[in-house]
Amino acid sequence: MQLALEIDLSAASLQNQVFKQIHGLIVSGRLKPGARLPGTRALSEQLGVSRNTIILAYETLTSEGYLESREGAGTYVSTTFPDNSLSVASGSNHDATYHKPVHLFVPVADDKKRSVPPSEIVCDFALESTDPACFPRSVWRRLTNWRMQSSKFNLTYSGTPKGLRELRETLAAYLGASRGISCTPDQIVIVTGVQQALNVAAHLFVRAGTTVAMEAPGCRTTADLFRAYGAHIAPVPVDQSGIVVRHLPQSRNGVAFATSARQYPMGVMLSASRRDILLNWADQTDSHIIEVDFDTEIRYQGSPPPPLKSLDTHGRVVYVGSFAASIGPGLRVGYMVLPPHLVDPAVHAASLLDHGFPCTGVPWLEQAVLNDFIETGAFEKHLRKIRKTYMARRDCLILALQKHIGSVQINPVHCGTHLVWELPPDFPSAVKLQTLMLKQQIGVYTLRDQNIGDADYLENCDRYLLLGFAALSETAIEEGISRLAKAL
Amino acid sequence: MQLALEIDLSAASLQNQVFKQIHGLIVSGRLKPGARLPGTRALSEQLGVSRNTIILAYETLTSEGYLESREGAGTYVSTTFPDNSLSVASGSNHDATYHKPVHLFVPVADDKKRSVPPSEIVCDFALESTDPACFPRSVWRRLTNWRMQSSKFNLTYSGTPKGLRELRETLAAYLGASRGISCTPDQIVIVTGVQQALNVAAHLFVRAGTTVAMEAPGCRTTADLFRAYGAHIAPVPVDQSGIVVRHLPQSRNGVAFATSARQYPMGVMLSASRRDILLNWADQTDSHIIEVDFDTEIRYQGSPPPPLKSLDTHGRVVYVGSFAASIGPGLRVGYMVLPPHLVDPAVHAASLLDHGFPCTGVPWLEQAVLNDFIETGAFEKHLRKIRKTYMARRDCLILALQKHIGSVQINPVHCGTHLVWELPPDFPSAVKLQTLMLKQQIGVYTLRDQNIGDADYLENCDRYLLLGFAALSETAIEEGISRLAKAL
Repeated sequence: MQLALEIDLSAASLQNQVFKQIHGLIVSGRLKPGARLPGTRALSEQLGVSRNTIILAYETLTSEGYLESREGAGTYVSTTFPDNSLSVASGSNHDATYHKPVHLFVPVADDKKRSVPPSEIVCDFALESTDPACFPRSVWRRLTNWRMQSSKFNLTYSGTPKGLRELRETLAAYLGASRGISCTPDQIVIVTGVQQALNVAAHLFVRAGTTVAMEAPGCRTTADLFRAYGAHIAPVPVDQSGIVVRHLPQSRNGVAFATSARQYPMGVMLSASRRDILLNWADQTDSHIIEVDFDTEIRYQGSPPPPLKSLDTHGRVVYVGSFAASIGPGLRVGYMVLPPHLVDPAVHAASLLDHGFPCTGVPWLEQAVLNDFIETGAFEKHLRKIRKTYMARRDCLILALQKHIGSVQINPVHCGTHLVWELPPDFPSAVKLQTLMLKQQIGVYTLRDQNIGDADYLENCDRYLLLGFAALSETAIEEGISRLAKAL
Repeated sequence: MQLALEIDLSAASLQNQVFKQIHGLIVSGRLKPGARLPGTRALSEQLGVSRNTIILAYETLTSEGYLESREGAGTYVSTTFPDNSLSVASGSNHDATYHKPVHLFVPVADDKKRSVPPSEIVCDFALESTDPACFPRSVWRRLTNWRMQSSKFNLTYSGTPKGLRELRETLAAYLGASRGISCTPDQIVIVTGVQQALNVAAHLFVRAGTTVAMEAPGCRTTADLFRAYGAHIAPVPVDQSGIVVRHLPQSRNGVAFATSARQYPMGVMLSASRRDILLNWADQTDSHIIEVDFDTEIRYQGSPPPPLKSLDTHGRVVYVGSFAASIGPGLRVGYMVLPPHLVDPAVHAASLLDHGFPCTGVPWLEQAVLNDFIETGAFEKHLRKIRKTYMARRDCLILALQKHIGSVQINPVHCGTHLVWELPPDFPSAVKLQTLMLKQQIGVYTLRDQNIGDADYLENCDRYLLLGFAALSETAIEEGISRLAKAL
């Protein structure tokens, strides 16, 4: 690396200047023990001084114990220092003097922090958790190696703004067959995940005062996001057939956020008639629907219901797909399917958020390997495997609840990775139960965490407990529920 | 994959329902020629009908020519269809009927579009272009393979919100030694690049009416970005010593955007005294500085100047680093160095933009391999190589200009990948020259593209031509300049 040194060529003793500045970098902790120094030739070229000057400065630093040279390997900062008064502590201490509170555009949701550190939870029925051990790593590695061998300039090249063409073609074919969504690859924009897609959609549809209808209970981070764009959130209740469409706001140019295949977090499916009403509402109020399809692939029974996008005849729906549930959130690839006239504005919005240059925000390698993963059928095979595994865990959880608690009221879990349990009337509230369980080092979840800002609703929602099952072994599930029952 | 079929078990002829729906998927183009159908057993499980029903439906479709079965490999959609009236054209045609204009939060910068398609430009002196052929692909591949072998759950796991710890440690050490920035790994947040970092910074500091001081000429996409957050952009002129600090706005709680090491696009370095004045201005007006260090590593002479961050004693500076110039924009990894009290708010802002879940927006693999690339010294070696290559191209460009044009007035190019040429008074304007050159299929650039909204400034800026050199071979540079001279 080039060291941050500045030499005054007109001043005396260049060698001393080099010595002093490298010494300064070492004692201030900027140059860390074990760090490799640049070669004497490179440094002399950088500073415009003779190589001999650098050699002499290095020798002095070495004789004083700050540097050590390793035979044939170069010069390094010593790992043992000449004096103990050395302040190797790093970090700008002066920064600590400045503590002006920051007025965030949106508040930090600190109430989402747990009262018990996650490390102390031994059995966590966490929501939106999946089991990374199910992922076929060796297949992914093989596909990665194969792509790396033919990578040429793709690794560092900016690529196209919509994302890898191949992947968009594969997704268009996949969506046609598995979701009934008819779209061209040009209507697809690859993004880093659902959250980025929602930001793009917010850029397209939301400004100060725009009404965003959201399912309640719903995804609070999504409500926070839309609020950051100045939206007014209109919570719309959810029943056993999904969002209660007669409560949709009637303001014009609005937005509705919908998880139609499986409402998050209640797990219910939007009924066919409500699908039609929701689409009509969008047309009549000149509004748009942002449809997020998060975990439809993790389906245990029946066919996935038709997405709103597949029924959309007026270009009102932006469909957002994700691999966070099916592959894992670490992949960082998602996609949007847009009506044709919204594609260019969406690409522009994405470039404001992420790209800057005309390139996609997702590295080429992840896009290419994901394409091959789908195309070779490995994704399908993986889905079959996790469906089987997660279904066994779901059944184990239901059986454990019946065994240890007795009769339990549970929303059907045809799809997804958690169940919603309506607590019996004589049970303590969900929030109390959560606190009780935390003392047992068990993580269970309530609808409070999914509150999107409707105070009335909060009072009624305390009768539901949410339990994620996909990331836990059957043994852990059995043990967790048995502890839960004992603590009651 | 699971097909999007819906079976009414109470209705007659299940087999006919399956037939009709698969037929519908094929003729509507949703299920494409060559697509593999799910196995009969899997489909019968999905739909809850007998396997025989599926087999019979498949057989009918096969006999009618819609499907073909390949020995031992399953059933596929035919690549040759039974009738020519088949509409295989995909894409929702109905979407085309809806063409309501979209009111974007910010305007699409369509004036940035070229009048000649890029494919017709044979010699493009594009700005911010580097040569992907210089990148050590085999080293990167080796490091990737090595990381893949030990990947375990990292590939799909969400990771930590700030980014890979190892990489943040490596960056902290690198920044200490090469930039004189003293920071801990905890002050670093990994992002997908400069653009995402700017969005995070905008969330922290910008709301409706906030004054953002920007160098003029400057980076227009950055101005667009801040405007999208409601900022009022205050253009501040740039001279040979960088941003003219006496023109900084005096409003409180403002922001200044600074490219201190090498002003973009003028290529000048911010003088030491102005660095101090800029930092004092931030303190006195309760403002923050967003410092973007884009291409300091590509330095041909002398040491890089100390970043504002290394001189910041009051936590006023957010430093943004990138690998887009040194490695390539396709990598999609950048980072922010924040004062300690701003780290948590920045992580929260980043989670609104991208993460959603508590995880970083950059895939693990890119972070891990980048870490190894820096740690093993391969990055340093790569930098030495591109410095040499790009310096030769810079020198070739200057020589070609002198040879074909004569005496040329050029800002010093100690650093970076383009030069700024002040046209002689008798030359046509830069914009005219650009049009002239496009007819010769040569891309040259003007300050108009870097206009951040100061109309007065525009009249004076037409005497500068910008020429990027890093991505062009010496032969191409010589040829391009010779054509330029002939066209004059």
